[in-house]
This record gives sequence, C-alpha cells and structure tokens, in this order.
Amino acid sequence: MCLMVKCALCVHLIYSDIVQRSREELKAIRETNPGLKPTLAIIQVCLCIGLNVMQICLPRQCTEEEVSDEILRLNEDSRVYGIFLHLPQSFLSKSVRNAIKPQKDVDGIYFFCNTPLDAPLIGKMAVLVGVEGPLKATLQFLLQNNGMMVQTCQWSSKHLQKQMFVAVVICQHVVRSSRRWIQEQQYQPWRLHPLKLQPLSPVPSDIEISRAQTPKPISQLAQEVGLLPEELEAYGNTKAKVHLSLLNRLQHQPNGKYVLVAGITPTPLGEGKSTVTIGLVQALSAHLKLNSFACLRQPSQGPTFGVKGGAAGGGYAQVIPMEEFNLHLTGDIHAITAANNLVAAAIDARILHEATQSDKALYSRLVPSVNGVRCFSPIQMARLQRLGINKSDPSDLTPEEVRAFVRLDLDPEKVTWQRVIDTNDRFLRKITVGQANTEKGNARQTQFDIAVASEIMAILALTDGLADMRARLGRMVVGSSRNGQPITADDLGVTGALAVLMKDAIKPTLMQTLEGTPVFVHAGPFANIAHGNSSVLADKLALKLVGEEGFVVTEAGFGADIGMEKFFNIKCRTSGLKPDVVVLVATVRALKMHGGGPNVTAGVPLPKEYISENLQLVADGCSNLKKQIQIAHLFGVPVVVALNAFKTDTQAEIDLVCRIAEASGASAAVQCHHWSRGGRGSVELAQAVKKVASQKNYFQFLYNLQDSVVEKIRTIAQKVYGADDIELSPEAQAKIDYYNQQGFGALPICMAKTHLSLSHMPEKKGVPTGFILPIRDIRASIGAGFIYPLVGTMSTMPGLPTRPCFYDIDLDPVTEEIKGLF
Amino acid sequence: MCLMVKCALCVHLIYSDIVQRSREELKAIRETNPGLKPTLAIIQVCLCIGLNVMQICLPRQCTEEEVSDEILRLNEDSRVYGIFLHLPQSFLSKSVRNAIKPQKDVDGIYFFCNTPLDAPLIGKMAVLVGVEGPLKATLQFLLQNNGMMVQTCQWSSKHLQKQMFVAVVICQHVVRSSRRWIQEQQYQPWRLHPLKLQPLSPVPSDIEISRAQTPKPISQLAQEVGLLPEELEAYGNTKAKVHLSLLNRLQHQPNGKYVLVAGITPTPLGEGKSTVTIGLVQALSAHLKLNSFACLRQPSQGPTFGVKGGAAGGGYAQVIPMEEFNLHLTGDIHAITAANNLVAAAIDARILHEATQSDKALYSRLVPSVNGVRCFSPIQMARLQRLGINKSDPSDLTPEEVRAFVRLDLDPEKVTWQRVIDTNDRFLRKITVGQANTEKGNARQTQFDIAVASEIMAILALTDGLADMRARLGRMVVGSSRNGQPITADDLGVTGALAVLMKDAIKPTLMQTLEGTPVFVHAGPFANIAHGNSSVLADKLALKLVGEEGFVVTEAGFGADIGMEKFFNIKCRTSGLKPDVVVLVATVRALKMHGGGPNVTAGVPLPKEYISENLQLVADGCSNLKKQIQIAHLFGVPVVVALNAFKTDTQAEIDLVCRIAEASGASAAVQCHHWSRGGRGSVELAQAVKKVASQKNYFQFLYNLQDSVVEKIRTIAQKVYGADDIELSPEAQAKIDYYNQQGFGALPICMAKTHLSLSHMPEKKGVPTGFILPIRDIRASIGAGFIYPLVGTMSTMPGLPTRPCFYDIDLDPVTEEIKGLF
Repeated sequence: MCLMVKCALCVHLIYSDIVQRSREELKAIRETNPGLKPTLAIIQVCLCIGLNVMQICLPRQCTEEEVSDEILRLNEDSRVYGIFLHLPQSFLSKSVRNAIKPQKDVDGIYFFCNTPLDAPLIGKMAVLVGVEGPLKATLQFLLQNNGMMVQTCQWSSKHLQKQMFVAVVICQHVVRSSRRWIQEQQYQPWRLHPLKLQPLSPVPSDIEISRAQTPKPISQLAQEVGLLPEELEAYGNTKAKVHLSLLNRLQHQPNGKYVLVAGITPTPLGEGKSTVTIGLVQALSAHLKLNSFACLRQPSQGPTFGVKGGAAGGGYAQVIPMEEFNLHLTGDIHAITAANNLVAAAIDARILHEATQSDKALYSRLVPSVNGVRCFSPIQMARLQRLGINKSDPSDLTPEEVRAFVRLDLDPEKVTWQRVIDTNDRFLRKITVGQANTEKGNARQTQFDIAVASEIMAILALTDGLADMRARLGRMVVGSSRNGQPITADDLGVTGALAVLMKDAIKPTLMQTLEGTPVFVHAGPFANIAHGNSSVLADKLALKLVGEEGFVVTEAGFGADIGMEKFFNIKCRTSGLKPDVVVLVATVRALKMHGGGPNVTAGVPLPKEYISENLQLVADGCSNLKKQIQIAHLFGVPVVVALNAFKTDTQAEIDLVCRIAEASGASAAVQCHHWSRGGRGSVELAQAVKKVASQKNYFQFLYNLQDSVVEKIRTIAQKVYGADDIELSPEAQAKIDYYNQQGFGALPICMAKTHLSLSHMPEKKGVPTGFILPIRDIRASIGAGFIYPLVGTMSTMPGLPTRPCFYDIDLDPVTEEIKGLF
Repeated sequence: MCLMVKCALCVHLIYSDIVQRSREELKAIRETNPGLKPTLAIIQVCLCIGLNVMQICLPRQCTEEEVSDEILRLNEDSRVYGIFLHLPQSFLSKSVRNAIKPQKDVDGIYFFCNTPLDAPLIGKMAVLVGVEGPLKATLQFLLQNNGMMVQTCQWSSKHLQKQMFVAVVICQHVVRSSRRWIQEQQYQPWRLHPLKLQPLSPVPSDIEISRAQTPKPISQLAQEVGLLPEELEAYGNTKAKVHLSLLNRLQHQPNGKYVLVAGITPTPLGEGKSTVTIGLVQALSAHLKLNSFACLRQPSQGPTFGVKGGAAGGGYAQVIPMEEFNLHLTGDIHAITAANNLVAAAIDARILHEATQSDKALYSRLVPSVNGVRCFSPIQMARLQRLGINKSDPSDLTPEEVRAFVRLDLDPEKVTWQRVIDTNDRFLRKITVGQANTEKGNARQTQFDIAVASEIMAILALTDGLADMRARLGRMVVGSSRNGQPITADDLGVTGALAVLMKDAIKPTLMQTLEGTPVFVHAGPFANIAHGNSSVLADKLALKLVGEEGFVVTEAGFGADIGMEKFFNIKCRTSGLKPDVVVLVATVRALKMHGGGPNVTAGVPLPKEYISENLQLVADGCSNLKKQIQIAHLFGVPVVVALNAFKTDTQAEIDLVCRIAEASGASAAVQCHHWSRGGRGSVELAQAVKKVASQKNYFQFLYNLQDSVVEKIRTIAQKVYGADDIELSPEAQAKIDYYNQQGFGALPICMAKTHLSLSHMPEKKGVPTGFILPIRDIRASIGAGFIYPLVGTMSTMPGLPTRPCFYDIDLDPVTEEIKGLF
C-alpha cells in the first residue's frame, strides 16, 4: 500500500474498486471500527483492500475556481481512476458542478449542507444518484450503518442545485472507471520491482546465495502482479496461497504465451532444467520487463535429507527462500499424505470389519438408527445407485441388496492402493501389516511409497478446480472385489473427507525468484508412474496473470521423450492449453556422454573428456539433442535450444552444438549463463523465446484417445522412443482386456520407463535403435485419468545412503539460519 | 491499522515505536519506495509496522499561538505518545519553542529554513539533537538516505535559535515516550473488540455455530493483544504463528494469573473441560474485560475422521474456524511426523548399512574425501567426544576407534523408536518392515503410533526455545546397542535436520474464540505415555501478553489425578511457572455414574438415572470430586469447581454438588452455561476464578527429583491414586536398574495409567481403595525428560470403526463450506 499525504483540505482521491467488496467484508470492517464516519469508512475500505489512497489537500481558503481547476487537472491525470469529493455546500458553484459532471472521471460527490464536517450523521438523508449494482449496495450499507436514511435515483443536475440537507451523489462513471482500473491492472506491464542481484565469483553455495538476498514481502509481490489482497492467503512473509477465484475474475483475460522447458535424455552430469526455467523468467521479467511467471513442481521433502539436496534451482537462478521451498512449503504434500493414508486405513479397516461381522451387523452399523431414524448418507445413496438399487428407505432393502451394499468384498491380494510417507524409508518398500491380535489374522503384505507417488498428487496436478478434484478423488480405484469389480474411494465413503483434507492444497503457492519475479510452486507428481508436471491450475492462474503479452514458463520432468510427451499428451489434453515454445536444455558435458563419453562416479574427479575440448564426442552426442527436437516437432511446437553453460565449455564446442541444433530444426540455439550471472545471463535465451513464441504454431496430439490401448502405446514407442515395436507380457495383455471391459480404455497413456535412455535400457545413451519395447505390466490411475504401462521396474521409495546429507544440516538456534542445505 | 485524516496543514503526530526497527527493515522500506521524503518515510515506517498514524491538520494561515496551543493541547492528550513537527522557520517563535521544550512530550522538530516544503534535501545539513541509541541510528539512516548530511549533539535551546540551513531536533523524550508507549501497550487492558454472539435455542451443531460467526482478521486480533506485526506469521486470515522473540521483548513484563482447567475422572458421558476452558476466557475477556488467553492442545487429525469429531470446544464456546483447528492447522503435527519418521528411516538404514559394510567402507563413506579433504562434521565430532576419542583428524583414528565410531551396533530387537502417522490406521499396530530384497534379510517387527504419541510432540510441549529443543531432540534415545549402551539421535547424526524440520512448529499458533478473544493452540502430547498438556511456550507467551492483571487458562488431559498431576510435577517443574487456580470440571451426569449409575451405550437412549433427579447418586458420586479437590490441595493450589450445565440438571442436584464441593475445600463452586450461552453463561465462573486467583497460594511439588524412581512412583500411587502400595514386575525393576545406571534416575515420572478410574481398573468408578498398583514395565523419553511407568497396556494407535465419521464429511465445491465435522 502506498500512502501519500500532502498538505491541506477537502479532496479525497480514491483509486478504488470497492464495487468488488462483499457486504460481509464491509460489515466486518465497520464492526471492528465503530468510530468511522462514511468518508473515512470508504477510505478505510480502500486501505484494507490494499488500494492506493491519495489525499490531495488544498488550502482551506482556496476558491471555487481552485477546486474546479484541481478536479479538472485530476481528470487529466492518468493515474487517477476515481475521485471522492467531500465539499461544503458553499463550493457548489457552476464551475465546480461543471467539473464534476458525470462524463468526467468524477466518482462521487459527498456534500453537506449546514453540517459541520464532524457533526453526527444519524437521521440525515443521503441520496445516491446514478449508481447501480454492487456499488449501490455498498454505499447504502455504509451510509445506513452510520444512521443515515438513503434514497436512490437517477443522475440529474437538479440534485446539485436542490438544498437537500445531506446529499451523496455518485456518478455511473465510478463503475466504468473501476472496470477500466481492473482492466488496466490486467493488461498493463506489471510495476514489478526486481530485486537487485550482484553475482559473486566464484559462485557461492546455493543456500548462501539464497540467504544473502532478502525476499520482498509476498504481499507486495502479489500486488505487483495484479493479485487482489483477498485472493491471497499468506503463509508467513515469503509464501502465499492464491485463491482459485482469480480464474473467475480474469476469465475474459487472454492467456499469455506458454513455454515448456524440457531436456535431452538425462545423465548423471545434470542438465539444469530448473535453473534454466528460473533463469529464463528472471531474464524475461527483471531484464526484458515482460510479465512472466515460472511454474515449478514442489519437491518431495524426503530426498532433501537423503542425497539429492534442494530443488529450488541453483546458483543465481533460484527460488527463495530455498529452505522454505524445499521443506514443508505450505503443507500440500502433507495434505496428500494424510488423504492417501486415510484411504489406506479405510481399506484395511473395512476388510477387517467385513471379515468379522454378519451382513446384518454391518448394515446396522453402516446405516445406524440415530434418534430412532435410519437413513443413508449421500455417499451411500450414490453407492446404491451404482449397484442399481433405486431405494432410499433403509428398511426396504432385500437381504441380497443389503449384502451387495455392505460388502465391498475387497480381495486383500488385489488391493492396489499403497500407503505413502514423505521420507526416504527403504525399509517400508515391502512390509506386512495387520499383525496385531486386534486385527484378527488379517495380515497382508503391502508397501509404502514416497508421498509424491500418490495418485492424489497426480490428481492435484491435473485437476481444474474443487468440484473436478472431488470427482476424481471419488473415482480412484483402490483394488478390486473378489469377483473382479473395481472398488473406488466413493465405495469406501471417504471422498468428502479427502476433498476436505485437500481443500487448501488445491491453491498454488506463490514465491519469488532471486530477482523478485513471481513463481508458482504446485504439485510434483512422479515422472514415471505419473506424468511429472506441475499443476494445470498454477499454469492457468499464471497465464491469466501475465496477460496477453506475458510468458509462463513451466518445466517437465526427465527428458523430453518422457516429460514433454506427457506434458503434451496428458497435461495439455486435460487442461486445453496450447504450448507456444519448447525450450530444450542441454549441456556440452551431457552431450559428450551421449556421444560415448566414459561413465562418471560420484566423488571421483571427472574424466578428461568432460573437462577439455572434444568435438567428436559433442557431435556424436548431438544425435540425442536432434532426436528430442524432432519429438517436439511431432507435436508441431517450435524449439529453442538452451545450452546451459559450464566454464569448461569451449567456444568451438558451443558453436558446434548451436549449429547442429539449428540444422536439426531448432528455431534458435543459445548459450545461457543464469547459474553464474542470474537473469542477465539468460537475456539472449529470453529474446529467442520471445521471438519464437510470436510465430504461429500448429500444436497437435500424438494419438487419439479413441485409439486402442495397444495402438497408443505403440505410437509412443515407435514415434517417440524409436522402438521397432512393443511386446506385451501376458499380464499386460490381461490388464488391457480388464481395463477395456471396465471402460477405462479411452484414457491417455503415461509410460513408466527409465529416464536414462530413449529406450528401456538405461545404459543405452544417444539414440538407440533396433529394439522392441517390452511392456511388463499395465496399471491405471483412474482418478488422475491415465493408464501407465510398466517398462521395467520403478522404485517408488528412495533410501538413505550411509551418510545422508542430514549430517551437514543444522539450525542456528539464535539466528535461526539453516546450514547445510544445498 | 487505523488511519485518521482531518483537514489542514503541517503537524504530524506519530504514535511511533520506530526505535524498534532494524536498519534492514527500514532499508527495505526505503528501497521499495524510492520517492519518499524523510517525513513521509517515517510515516511510512509507522504504517508498515502497523502503528496508528494521526495527522492533525491546522489551517495554513494559522498563527504561531494556534500552533503552540495545539502542541500544548496534544501534550495533554493521553492518546498521544509522540509528536512529529514539520514547521517552516517562521514558526519558531518563543511560544512555539516553549511548547516544544524537551520536558514536554514533543518527539521531534523538523524544520526548514528558506526551503520550500517539497524542495530536495540532498546536501542539506541535519542536526540530531539529544537523541541516543537505536533512534539515533534510525534517523541518521533515514536522513542520510535522503542525501542529507547529519550531525548529532546534545539538546540545547541554541539549536532552535541558530539559523542553520536545515535542522532536525529530536528530544530525548522520544525515547522515554516510546518506552511509555510500549509499557502502556503491555500493561493496559487490551482494546479488544469482541465478536457479538447471539445464541440460538436449541443450540445448533458445532460447525453451524462456527460457520455463522465471521472471525476477525487474525492480524487485527494480534494487534489488539499487543503483538507487533513482525512478531506474526499469518497462515491465511484466521491463523498465525507467533515469534518467540516476543519473550525477549516482554522479558521484564510480570506474568498474568495462571489457571489450569482439570476434570473429575472421565466417564463416557463427557465433562467438557475444553468448553469450560473456552467459555471461561470468553467470559473473562469479552464480558469482564480482563485480558485473557486460552492455551489449548492441538488435536490429532486422525481421530477427526474416526469416531471423535472435533476438539475445538463446542456449542457457543468454541475456537473458530473449527475446521481449521481440527485439520492441518499450521502443520505442526505434520512436521513432527516428518521429523519422527526421519529418525526411524535413519535407524533402519543404519542397521542395514552396518550389516552390509566393513568398518573401512563405513568409515570412508561416513567421512568421505571431498576434493581430497576428509573431515568430521560437527555432529560427528560430538560423537567422538562421547566415545572419549579426542581426535579431529580422520586419519589419526586407530582401527578400534574407527570401529567404535562407525558402528552404532544397534540391536534390532531393542529399537524403541516407532514410526508415526496422523491417521487412525489399526493395521499398523504391529507390522514387519524390511521385507524387500533390497533390505537383504534385515526384516524386523515394529509398529506405527499415532503422530501425537511421538516423543517429539512431548518435546515440543516442554521446550522453552530453539536451543533447548535442539538439545532435547539430540538426547532422544532410540534404542540400545548390542552391549546395552543407549543410542541417541545425536549418534545417528540427525539432530540438526530434526531441528530444521521443527523450526516453524516451535512457534505457537494464534486463533480466536467465537467471541473474538485470543487462543494459542500448540502441541498435544498423549496424556498417558506423555504428559498431556499444551506447550510451555504458548503459556509463557500468553502470560506475558495478558500482563499482570490478566489470565491464562490452560487445560490438562484426562482427570485431575493424571493431567493435573503431570501439569504440576512435570510441566510446571520444567517451565518454572506457578499455577494460581485449578478449575475442576464436573457434570451432574458424570457424578451420577461415579455414584454407581448404570453404564451407557452409544446410540441407545440414556438410562433414566441420568435424565431425572437422583440426589443419592449425585451425593455418592461426589466422592470422586472430593478426592480430586484433595489432590489439587496436595500441591497447595486452590480449586474452583465448574459444574458444566445440562438441561436435565435439577436445582436440588446443582445445589447439592456445590455444597459438597465447598465442604470438600473448594474455594468456590458454580454452575456454568457457556455451551448454550457463550461467555455470558460463564461470567459467574470467571468472577469466582478472578477472586480466588487474587488469594495467596502455596504451590509445591509432590516429590523431589532426587527421590528414587520407586519412591516417586509410590508417592504418586499412594497420595494421588489412593493405592495401598505399588508392585513392580521384574521387567520394571530391571528397567529401573538400567535407567539408574545410565543416569536417568532423576527424571520426573509420567504415569501411563487408564484415565477411566483413579485406580488401574477402568471399571472402578468413584474412589477405589484397597488396591496395589501394578507396574508392568517402565519406559523413558529422555529427550522429553521423563520416565513413564506402564500400568496396563496403552493403545497408541486408534482404529476406524465400521462407519467412520468420514461418511458424513464433505466439501461444497462452490461455497467451500465443510459439512459433517462436529
């Protein structure tokens, strides 16, 4: 909020959108400030909602001409969107009246006759003239709460001439100018105040860089990017959740440009997709002054204490504070854990209760008599309908119907739902539960996955709102009955509770980069058993906030063959959003490994191939880059190659990569230096992205949902991975038949394949050919809405090494600074 | 923030504590508002820190006399704690100078000679006169940032007479008046704006009542109770974490009165300790206008979806929004879960790594060579010292020393640390982990507890700050080695990571009651295997915030024999706080059950004994009430009995209970009606508490820590429970010997006993006598700092019933309203 106070009398200018306020909010403000008078109340409203208030003071003895001149001057001032006048009767000369005619941007006249400025208003009459809609209600409410009687009528100059005791005149212009204000808020370049960056050399550790920069208050950043205060829920001073109501408010706003950052096939040397994503928005926002947002995945907390370290970018391209980003954040993953495990507990408890009770006992407990009345809850009514039982009186069910209703008859061997935990706990990879006496011999083998592997995480990433999320949660299949029917969360009666647990997690979290530009952090599903992309909702919110000329940069997990393919075929299909550019990240080192460079071992110095010039390895490795460019072109989206700089890169190597990239169809290929220089180091990349994004593109999906499951898998295997064909195991074929029979055949495909090769063989670098892709098994996430074929085995629970990185992590109890996160 | 704008010129009054601001904060404000001039900057500072700013405007043509009169008038105004003058040189007449002499409450004179008000100040000279300390630094900084040169000197009237080009004169009074302001903020009754309550009859459901009341913005409540904006971290608009720095700021503030709410021995009929706690603070704050805080435990989320429903109080005595209270809140329990399970994962991973690696391999991994350098991390150095190895160079260790260092040699059979989860998941009561091939045959049996049973929760409840919490976390014993040595979190190297995970959880969460009075929610340890009380830190913060005449009301779990005994002997001993009053909660119904009334069954109408007058049962049941009063008196603390009203209570029954209570030594006994009427229904109780709290009391512990473990247990069993003696199992005796040998014998005792009887036999109501208390086993929470004897078996993992309450819970996707929580 910016308050300016000059010296003198009587004209209040309000940059106001009070038309946006609800009665309840105004009431709350009034009630907690009982002494407020109407004028003050309106100013107060503006302050409370974070709007600029300007009070221009004129000398008390100024003339009518001075007043009307000032009004006319203000009408010319482009920063002024509304004026609130508070004048004594004596000022109503013709010149003032002319100045405040409704065709001018005068929002209100509020004048008193024979009433001292501070006299009580109780019992006085106010007339609202020419004001309609929410504003009318707002003003009526404010005035009536001050004990005034209120009349309304259409605008007419006679109201100014009439000697009414108290009159309030509001022009229709207030509505128009408020609209203009809101529109201009949306379309205009943000008034973003970037944080200054002074990169050091050598580049300090990530946490040192993060700690050295003081983030803006998150409420300030929110205001800078056009969020209204009521659309924000702060979580401390550096994180805030953003309400989905924004989508409604900005529904007529055109989307910005949509940029995906993907990578070549990953190597142990790292490519730096996250740093490119952040460096690119720092360059776009802080240096090219273009509205831009990064949308990132929330990292799993478990690996932060294992070997991985943080995931907030690195060097001078980071999200800050990095420790907040890497740890609990705003609790979304904790909410997923709670929801996921409530389903798990409900499954086993239900198996136990069904195993130990008669139909009658189950029925009397599931539909109990409360004060003599028995009735089905809504979720039980829904189950009855799925069972084809069209009855609503519990006493009407036949014994067979009771049996069908009370017995999910879950086959313990066919429970597919796993518990999750956000800790690297390898001993939970295979466990036996239910061994206590109280569970009466119902022990069974199962496992914990890391929390982000939960189907609920994939749902969070793909949903477009609360109603859709609730529906998806209800559709989740947790196993099947002994006669082969899929059993869902709806059948367990747990859907509503899951939605309640997830009601805050659905709101994306706003943070900032090292240069004070905005970032959404939201959802982080696995990139193999799920689709590995941040949330649809964050992207949608960001695309509205940046506006037509702005940029949203989002990142896909793993290499482009996996993350980008799923981004297009699953995420964009679900969201309806069309991507404009793919930024494909590569490094000279990683290309060398694809070209046949030697393996590397952690803790051992890098082989010389990676630290001195070797053009042959680079040239050979560019085959992988070329293939990934071609994959993007399959979808009709242009590619900009971002060559992430290392100090060992030689100019000849850089030139070679850029030449091959452009020869392979990339629209541009540039080196970028955000890691060592921040956004300034990626300005060239940003300019290339801006240019390519303005070109027309022809986005298309790779397959139709109506294709058969086998056809869809084959299309991905052949066109994307370069396989000759696919080979289905008998289990996989049986699953396909089962899913088709259950009506799940038209879902998109989410391949669970190693990310270390275009093929299923992790050791095959470059562009493998001549292989048949084996499909070991097929699973389905019905709530999230995809089928995932398993190519090889996927670990869904990382472990702790002998010396986990927690050995170095500590908290200074005095300064509260965190040490050892990286 | 309250902004008042009147009309005219030139005198700025600032209610200011800018002396509290750091250079960094001011710098941030300046940098984001580059156009600010010094005066504006100071006002801006005040606004940003949430202080009231008053601008009194005088007519431009006013005379010097009018100015000096206004200054003198302001000096008389008790609301004015500081004045900032902004005067043209022409106003420096004698009368004005007299008015602004330093013995008046004039905070600053800021005057310009020959300088138009808006002229740039760059290069001008400012003289700070008579100002010291942080204020001097602040003003110097502000002025220098405006390009002014700054001199400082002592106060003298010649500065006013000298024709310096620009002069800034600050009286020493600013410091004194700032101090006065701060002090008055602390000692004065809060300017609390209670929320109006209009109770309906019949009383609606808890969630309907909660939803019908709009909470105050939490930042407003914080301001009302004297918190500074920088001491608050909002989590949305209805919850905020409060910084522990408050304890430092208010260290010289006397504590308020400390009131404990305890109960008679619980029955299935419920007594309502939580509603009494909340009703009492509503009465104290909103009706008696006394500063008061409730300190509540955070409920476990798991049972919310089982059978229990919410724990935010009930009826018209609730914490709102109750769904926020009952669900994730600010993530503390999630943080505990993460920290607890990181320890568990570290234990099993360590067992595996030790089982599969040679000493040399372990050593080279635990102390790796990084860029050719090997060194111990600080936590490893600490372990070396515990092992008696005074070496710091990893290459100096002998093979024996290496072996001692790298091998914790944890005995898998003697791991006492359990995993936790905040879900009612009965199938995790006994499990086998480590069955995957990757764990190489190291499977072992273990269990999950509900998250609040974690020792880390008990630590959170007992700690007094970050350093203490970190030390306690490090001391936690997780099991023992094969040769019987206790192994701690420090030995695992995980302490720092735990502290990092818990860094936000240590800050109490501020919420509000239905009547808008403040509540801290913080920690919720089990009341059997732990001490069942909310946090020491929340109580300490609240005692400072309410000030000397205020009240802090906190609640102990279970009956007074358990929760209150632990409150005194464990919590008060740890915190050093002295309780002033015990409020002992009883109901006519529960007393009837203690008097021999029949058992009750959920879902079946209550037996007639409970719904019609039965004086004999009441009289007999009062034996339990009398015994609990006597227990409180053992500690020297006076008792007020709160008889929680039910509509079936008859006047004769009420009179009988009150008569017996007072005859048994209670200082007062009153009926209370907060459930149906809110705070107004508990005014009589509040008055009684106020009166009794003003009496002298003689608080003492029941035993000395230096007593032997057996003596301490016997003292509690005989004096509190009324047992004839105790009987130790051989296991218990062996544990005592072990703990004594390890030096843990001087810890307080935390009895893990059924809460349903004063004895160990849950079915024995009233006051059982003639029994020997059997001690089955003894365990220890070394980090939390107590030994807990097990009397019977304690379930640490609740289960889900056949029809969990999640069947009724749902979220309206449009209104976001939650249904079915109760």
